[in-house]
Amino acid sequence: MALNETHDAGLQSWVASANTGSSDFPIQNLPFAVFRRKSSSEAFRGGVAIGDQVLDMAAVRDAKALGGDVQAQVDAAAQAQLNSLMAMGPASWSALRLALSRALRAGAAQEAALKACLVPQADVEYGVPAQVGDYTDFYTSVHHATNVGKLFRPTNPLMENYKWVPIGYHGRASSIRISGVDFKRPNGQLKAPDADPVLKPCNRLDYELEMGIYAGSANAWGEAIGIEDAENHIFGLCLLNDWSARDVQAWEYQPLGPFLSKNFATSISPWIVTLEALEPYRTAFVRPSEDPQPLPYLSSEANSQRGALDVQLTVAIQTEKMRAEGKAAEQITRTSYRHAYWTMAQLIAHHTVNGCDLQPGDLLGTGTLSGPTMAEAGALLEITEGGKKPLSLSNGETRTFLLDGDAVVFAGWCEKPGAARIGFGECRATVLPAHQA
Amino acid sequence: MALNETHDAGLQSWVASANTGSSDFPIQNLPFAVFRRKSSSEAFRGGVAIGDQVLDMAAVRDAKALGGDVQAQVDAAAQAQLNSLMAMGPASWSALRLALSRALRAGAAQEAALKACLVPQADVEYGVPAQVGDYTDFYTSVHHATNVGKLFRPTNPLMENYKWVPIGYHGRASSIRISGVDFKRPNGQLKAPDADPVLKPCNRLDYELEMGIYAGSANAWGEAIGIEDAENHIFGLCLLNDWSARDVQAWEYQPLGPFLSKNFATSISPWIVTLEALEPYRTAFVRPSEDPQPLPYLSSEANSQRGALDVQLTVAIQTEKMRAEGKAAEQITRTSYRHAYWTMAQLIAHHTVNGCDLQPGDLLGTGTLSGPTMAEAGALLEITEGGKKPLSLSNGETRTFLLDGDAVVFAGWCEKPGAARIGFGECRATVLPAHQA
Repeated sequence: MALNETHDAGLQSWVASANTGSSDFPIQNLPFAVFRRKSSSEAFRGGVAIGDQVLDMAAVRDAKALGGDVQAQVDAAAQAQLNSLMAMGPASWSALRLALSRALRAGAAQEAALKACLVPQADVEYGVPAQVGDYTDFYTSVHHATNVGKLFRPTNPLMENYKWVPIGYHGRASSIRISGVDFKRPNGQLKAPDADPVLKPCNRLDYELEMGIYAGSANAWGEAIGIEDAENHIFGLCLLNDWSARDVQAWEYQPLGPFLSKNFATSISPWIVTLEALEPYRTAFVRPSEDPQPLPYLSSEANSQRGALDVQLTVAIQTEKMRAEGKAAEQITRTSYRHAYWTMAQLIAHHTVNGCDLQPGDLLGTGTLSGPTMAEAGALLEITEGGKKPLSLSNGETRTFLLDGDAVVFAGWCEKPGAARIGFGECRATVLPAHQA
Repeated sequence: MALNETHDAGLQSWVASANTGSSDFPIQNLPFAVFRRKSSSEAFRGGVAIGDQVLDMAAVRDAKALGGDVQAQVDAAAQAQLNSLMAMGPASWSALRLALSRALRAGAAQEAALKACLVPQADVEYGVPAQVGDYTDFYTSVHHATNVGKLFRPTNPLMENYKWVPIGYHGRASSIRISGVDFKRPNGQLKAPDADPVLKPCNRLDYELEMGIYAGSANAWGEAIGIEDAENHIFGLCLLNDWSARDVQAWEYQPLGPFLSKNFATSISPWIVTLEALEPYRTAFVRPSEDPQPLPYLSSEANSQRGALDVQLTVAIQTEKMRAEGKAAEQITRTSYRHAYWTMAQLIAHHTVNGCDLQPGDLLGTGTLSGPTMAEAGALLEITEGGKKPLSLSNGETRTFLLDGDAVVFAGWCEKPGAARIGFGECRATVLPAHQA
């Protein structure tokens, strides 16, 4: 992929709110979601963000407002789930992006027709944008793995396999929920050191700051995807919160990994930012020279030079008290996806090297994206050193882990001189009290 | 659930092959699958096994041959995937079973109409019978857990959590394949003790003898299923082979569990035997008195008295040499599902105790069903003690792990005096050579 006219930072849209410079959704972004009017019984359908509006792709389809060359893509983008669009592959996605970019530009002939297809973002609610056949979660931040490892193995925090294997495991697809859907604190077996386990509401509820990667076109079962081809199988990215019950996890995870500690809820942001929109923010991942070189199936020149993505990420918490006081969520972490030890292409190549078949709409979590310093840590487990050092909030409250009523808000964006800001919007959910166990 | 007229061991069908006493599919069984004529381009549709025939439920629907009371169930059972039928719940399943039982009995008025809906099993091929939204694999055999644990921790084979937590993890739904679909030996990272890892075809390929449990009606997200209600959420069972790359597993599985070592292929038998058909084979699971009692959410009187199922299970291997010599597969293991440490109801109650939502068609693997003796071990890893003691086959061949060309065949059935034999058919697949890494 290369920069093209759709990335031109000078482009302006006839949708004025896209041109502010601070919008997450300028004409250079054009992310996809599925939506309907709030609290309506309308069918969900696909939409494209432009400024503070959603371009209703079902309306675009019905109005035949985007030209016959991309009619198949428009049909797919209008559906209630975007799997068909994801299955089409990069040439089709790119053609649709170009058509959208041209039609939404200031002065475009389609302005009148498309204006009738806009719905204010303030008036809509979103759905999970794809049928997620399988959800895989990785562990790509060496800083997170080290921080967590230190809590359990102070002298040997990082497992021997970490720098060779992009560690991952399968997560739960059914409990993925869109941003804004709150969830109950899970019950689970909690085990104090000298007591039998008991069934109780989780005491150590945590978030994990991640990005989600949607698979595009599938690979045939039994055929690996080579690293050079890997990015052709990625449709786009979102923000992802891998909610984690640390006390449940500590007791259950040996020997087969996390299960009930993770599968009660996973939150995702509604907008899928395409890989093409992120093109200006590709960057190198430089392995420390003392680290082993990745095996050939995980190596390519392009991957080294531009495999990483510089997405700025923040975590904020809004407690019940803050809400009562009218205070906004308070930022507690800022980091970047560029620190990940394994790139998106490496995750795809690794996931399929054994012939495992990825399907359009499959979701790959990156794992907690902690950066090198504690100000960049992506989970409370790290920030509070396993609950030992409470986090102080500016209103005098403290947190070791999340309390009922706490909302956790992730935001993500790319920004640099000479390129348009590409935003992800936010991923937010509030912890509700546990169901009586 | 209780015994009713459909379980009467004296019932005979007008399909003579169902009445032999040795058929897996007498009129007391009536399992479901999806099928089409072999090598045809027909659409898959639901079918019910009776003797050596399949009752084509799409033909039954079109002929309106089963009466209006169960028309909704017939419609659902005729589909290419059985999720809608699974979603209907036990009263609906039971009504359909009763209607099928009455219509297939010797002397039934529907004989002429239904005869036209039969297709010989010899002429059909099967599909995966449901859209499996999530596939979970458990670890319910304490014998398997102990045998495997001994290889890694001779003095402390069983983890402390084992007798409290029904250990499980999420597996891969996309690579589930129906019996008869062969698969390539996977490539993966192999690590010799004093060398760097390399990408190679798996050297320690193994099977795992399991049963699969299909979830029926869903629970609401955030709501647990109580153990008393758990079996109402189970549609039926099949045989399941959780193929495992032991060398890949050993290197990758810490700290998040198995991933590429398992997700390249999972084989399932085509026929889903309903829980109602298995009613005569319910049995007690008696916990050793020295073991802790399960926590209340995993306990019920009914679960203790009849939570287990006495399904006989065998593993057989047919090597390429055996096939060349015209020899049948050679049985190497015989055991029973009744030895499992955790019952089906406990798995459902545990899986949902945190609010995780099960969907109709979700598949739960039991984990390797090894019995208490080595003749009952459900994986080569156990039989050969991690590859140290080769298994001798009667034609002079030996195996530590599977070689290319080896077919592994599972069979399962229930049998006892006074009750009809209830069979599962078989689950078979052959190992193909690895794709060039």
